[in-house]
Amino acid sequence: MRVLRAEQFGLTREVEYGTPEQNEAVRQIVESVRTEGDAALLAFTEKFDGVRLEAAGLRVTAEEIEQAYGKVEAPFLEAIREAAANIRAFHEKQLRQSWVDVQPDGTMLGQILRPLKRVGVYVPGGKAAYPSSVLMNVIPAQVAGVPEIVMVTPPATGGRAGIDPYILVAAAEAGVKELYRVGGAQAVAALAYGTNTIAPVDKICGPGNIYVALAKRAVFGAVDIDSIAGPSEIVVLADDTADAAYVAADLLSQAEHDEMASAILVTTSPKLGEAVASEVERQLATLPKADIARKSIDANGAILLAETMEEALAAVNRMAPEHLEVMVAEPMGLLGRIENAGAIFLGPYSSEPVGDYFAGPNHILPTNGTARFSSPVNVDDFLKKSSLIYYSKDALLKNGEKIMTLARHEGLEAHARAIGIRLEREGEQ
Amino acid sequence: MRVLRAEQFGLTREVEYGTPEQNEAVRQIVESVRTEGDAALLAFTEKFDGVRLEAAGLRVTAEEIEQAYGKVEAPFLEAIREAAANIRAFHEKQLRQSWVDVQPDGTMLGQILRPLKRVGVYVPGGKAAYPSSVLMNVIPAQVAGVPEIVMVTPPATGGRAGIDPYILVAAAEAGVKELYRVGGAQAVAALAYGTNTIAPVDKICGPGNIYVALAKRAVFGAVDIDSIAGPSEIVVLADDTADAAYVAADLLSQAEHDEMASAILVTTSPKLGEAVASEVERQLATLPKADIARKSIDANGAILLAETMEEALAAVNRMAPEHLEVMVAEPMGLLGRIENAGAIFLGPYSSEPVGDYFAGPNHILPTNGTARFSSPVNVDDFLKKSSLIYYSKDALLKNGEKIMTLARHEGLEAHARAIGIRLEREGEQ
Repeated sequence: MRVLRAEQFGLTREVEYGTPEQNEAVRQIVESVRTEGDAALLAFTEKFDGVRLEAAGLRVTAEEIEQAYGKVEAPFLEAIREAAANIRAFHEKQLRQSWVDVQPDGTMLGQILRPLKRVGVYVPGGKAAYPSSVLMNVIPAQVAGVPEIVMVTPPATGGRAGIDPYILVAAAEAGVKELYRVGGAQAVAALAYGTNTIAPVDKICGPGNIYVALAKRAVFGAVDIDSIAGPSEIVVLADDTADAAYVAADLLSQAEHDEMASAILVTTSPKLGEAVASEVERQLATLPKADIARKSIDANGAILLAETMEEALAAVNRMAPEHLEVMVAEPMGLLGRIENAGAIFLGPYSSEPVGDYFAGPNHILPTNGTARFSSPVNVDDFLKKSSLIYYSKDALLKNGEKIMTLARHEGLEAHARAIGIRLEREGEQ
Repeated sequence: MRVLRAEQFGLTREVEYGTPEQNEAVRQIVESVRTEGDAALLAFTEKFDGVRLEAAGLRVTAEEIEQAYGKVEAPFLEAIREAAANIRAFHEKQLRQSWVDVQPDGTMLGQILRPLKRVGVYVPGGKAAYPSSVLMNVIPAQVAGVPEIVMVTPPATGGRAGIDPYILVAAAEAGVKELYRVGGAQAVAALAYGTNTIAPVDKICGPGNIYVALAKRAVFGAVDIDSIAGPSEIVVLADDTADAAYVAADLLSQAEHDEMASAILVTTSPKLGEAVASEVERQLATLPKADIARKSIDANGAILLAETMEEALAAVNRMAPEHLEVMVAEPMGLLGRIENAGAIFLGPYSSEPVGDYFAGPNHILPTNGTARFSSPVNVDDFLKKSSLIYYSKDALLKNGEKIMTLARHEGLEAHARAIGIRLEREGEQ
């Protein structure tokens, strides 16, 4: 791994907006599904997925889901159930209440929180079909109280014919009752605008390839979308008390995702830096995905040396990593100085996969430096707020003139008169 | 006003994406400011605003702000101060705490909430320079704890040479200490990427013309942005107990904003519908902005008749209005059945301008039907969350195998090994 001075290091961040050709292809698919509905949806499914379906066959049946349970191993089922329970428990702690502030003059002001009515979750096909991501997308919506959660996934996933049974089991465990075998930009368009078979949703979330990402961007405004994920990142902040083998293993767990993934150690200890570099080599030798991990480490990996913990923290905050592991003598002591990070893993036993799969916090995190201003997927993402304003007659009589002054200053006479007409009439009585 | 059956009515919603020429112009401005900094910023200010400045003159001085206080009337100052206090009080009630869940095995899971570090507020020039909007954008950020709030506004606002003193006073009352006389796409680019004079921000909010909106869209990803507002809407839901003059006045207060604004009455009472229609005519006759209001009422206004309150509520929820006034015999009784609305004004004295200016809830609300999935501007918009994961050795030993099962199922062996290496070493001890 390359060794650099922490003070100079910055991540290059490029946002993927697709080629003009990809954008045009997506625009046409979205428009066709919007205007032609199921017919277009089925035609694109045949064209892109090579599967010929009828509208009645789009929905996954209860039998298929039941059969899927027969195909998964008991330890998988046990683990995913416990993970789902942990994720549910963590997200339930985020739930908030509507509130109202009742004032002595009768005024009531508040925020009413309500779940979105219908949410669509996209689950990609192929090797990116992760049961854990199904839980992480669905459970927060369910905890928020969203009454209708619908899942779409390409007709063949997990490299198998038909939908991966592990995906079906994860969906069922998360509580999804409505699933359709449809994917790509056409599935996103169907969720956004609705067809005869698939009713439109209020929000679309879940990862996908570039066509799915561009389709989400194209329908944003008609519906809400989640953020569009960039490549995955880990930063490990460590001092000379850290175990080099643990640090190396955690860096590699990020690097195996994808050649674009970044795995970076920031340390005040040159000795640890050296030890991690050789541990990475040692562990890489026997990794099944050594090829991908090696390319990621060479292109985007780095060991950053800092003179002081201050300098190390500055580098971390500048990078605003998706995942941050803190392996120092006193990890809790640094928490207050970490300004930007999607998820913070403290201490030697909080290896990133603990959070990826099991502990409960969401594994869908802000990438690409956006932890500066955005958050892990959470229950708030599936709630909307309405302001509540109840003004009593007393309150209006007391404050009406001031409201009229402000409205008139802005040249909005009809606003002033809406108050004025009430003051005239009610003031007399 | 046209009278229609409520059951058939739907609003047409078109999202404004700009012409290809406008998009290209914005792209070039953003790119120039990104690469050339202050030089480009000053050149565009001269070109578009006709004002020649030096970099040192971009920042508004403390003296200018002090002088502005000398130019505003006492009743304005008094009203804006009380409004600011109300807005602050309402937003302070939204503040949330970071939390941590400490479990018996030593596991700690939580959410750490932190304010964004630096936020930019755009304030448009000309007749759209509203002191009330300054308060509504700045105060939530300030309550969230954002330490740096910076405002930009074109060098000539409010139809006067120099910046409108009312805007300067509103900014000062809201607590802004850093203001620059720069506007348009070039100001957005400066906030997003920074120049020598203006440090980059994490989020840009505030309304603007189409160039400002397109520039915000273009820099999204590098920074966060607020939602891009569509035309303003009011829906009044009323039964035969409502006062037709109040209803008409409130509809007109929306219609005077702009020809694209929508003002719609939904009622179960044909008699009220008739009365409101003639009241609108009567009140229009003497309105200073009768011209705009008439065009808005003709193009986008409507009186929707519903057979039942059920049908009326369905129409309201379908429209998902920005502002909803409920003037029925028992307004509180309907609250639970209003699914989609930005702000809900209950009863005869809660005229929309009460919320636009004074009561405390934010007047920046989801437009264009997006109340289905989005919310008024609020304190959460200026906070970010980080997940906190601390796993104890006990917790890892207990759960490690399950985590490895899930990782291996997804083909991520390095994830499994990051856990496995710890189980091996720590299990032995």
